[in-house]
Amino acid sequence: MESMNLNKHISGQFNEELENLRNHVMKMGGMVEQQLTNALNAVENTDEELAQEVLTSDFKINLLEVSIDEECTKIIAKRQPAASDLRLILAIAKAISDLERIGDEAGRIAKVALKSFSGAQQEFLLSLDNMGRQVLKMLHDTLDAFARMDVDAAFEIHKDDQKVDREYEALTRQLMTYMMEDPRSIPKIMDVLWSARSLERIGDRCQNICEYVIYFVKGKDVRHITREQIEKDILGNR
Amino acid sequence: MESMNLNKHISGQFNEELENLRNHVMKMGGMVEQQLTNALNAVENTDEELAQEVLTSDFKINLLEVSIDEECTKIIAKRQPAASDLRLILAIAKAISDLERIGDEAGRIAKVALKSFSGAQQEFLLSLDNMGRQVLKMLHDTLDAFARMDVDAAFEIHKDDQKVDREYEALTRQLMTYMMEDPRSIPKIMDVLWSARSLERIGDRCQNICEYVIYFVKGKDVRHITREQIEKDILGNR
Repeated sequence: MESMNLNKHISGQFNEELENLRNHVMKMGGMVEQQLTNALNAVENTDEELAQEVLTSDFKINLLEVSIDEECTKIIAKRQPAASDLRLILAIAKAISDLERIGDEAGRIAKVALKSFSGAQQEFLLSLDNMGRQVLKMLHDTLDAFARMDVDAAFEIHKDDQKVDREYEALTRQLMTYMMEDPRSIPKIMDVLWSARSLERIGDRCQNICEYVIYFVKGKDVRHITREQIEKDILGNR
Repeated sequence: MESMNLNKHISGQFNEELENLRNHVMKMGGMVEQQLTNALNAVENTDEELAQEVLTSDFKINLLEVSIDEECTKIIAKRQPAASDLRLILAIAKAISDLERIGDEAGRIAKVALKSFSGAQQEFLLSLDNMGRQVLKMLHDTLDAFARMDVDAAFEIHKDDQKVDREYEALTRQLMTYMMEDPRSIPKIMDVLWSARSLERIGDRCQNICEYVIYFVKGKDVRHITREQIEKDILGNR
């Protein structure tokens, strides 16, 4: 894996600090990806133990967020970075906040494994799992694009979020129809609905991280502008 | 209103830049507060026009977020701040991200005003409004604590989030029971449920902003630690 296109500095120690920072972010990303994988597996196999593990492991991600954030602040104060170094550090500071929230959402999803569902309801768990695997791939690709600061990959993932949104809407409609037909199922189906929402939110957070990649590489903040604008104005010179 | 306890610098221009930054954040905060007020009023009075206004005004908050973020980056690159100046700028960079998301949630709430509810369902809108006014006050107090960098006020608001969470849980239970009794109402009641969720999320975001106040004043990152720990370890020397 390429090395985040880090600039080489005269100060070997500064290089090392940025490399360490990068490694810590990738470690945090790996942990978050594992949490989401475990959450989905726990739901798929009604594995209560694994679900509990997801819930009790969240604090490790929180600790890492705080320590990486501190690392960013220290580097800024000590090295007074400018231009792309500063953009890198600020992109990392934002990305870890999204990663931490993805970890929280994984915990919400894991809780579904603690409930039992009837035969007819299993079909929704299957749809949830399908959506979950898609979002997991999106997260994996996002972390990969972030590790390589690959702006083209980031833009492709950014576009893919539409698919997740469509899947979320379809599943929501199905679940609402089912609740209307079997009102006693409402409390349980609501848990599935909240989990679908969590997955949709993870998709949004992956999109955020992809925006930071574009910000780092292109020096332009592309939040709140349309995909067409990003493609035309920012990536036009690919 | 006190002036965010800004340090005075030898460079008058640096002082001016920090003062401008502060004014822009407070302007953004004021706009977000107005959006939430309008959203709640729109729902209370079934005012479709006002709801549409909330939805079409959101872009102004987004623009402000991007420009304040750029301002933060420029000041860091140009002034190479350290210690409390750097903490202030980083606290602001984080706070505007929460403010922008509060604006998004206000938009989601406003959409409820575009639906019509039966007489029996009005009672839920009333509960939603009660919860909304409480969250609005929390937001107002949060912005006030942020403007004054008042760590005691921030801690009190932080504690108040529990009340919002309890209200959210009570309302959710009520809404689920009602849906079970009248399944045809599910699509509409779900809108109320999502709005209640949005309010609960706004409470969480206010809590985040309060944590940045504590971080700025005390130099300690209090995310992910318990209220008891904050009180004992961080604020003990009040």
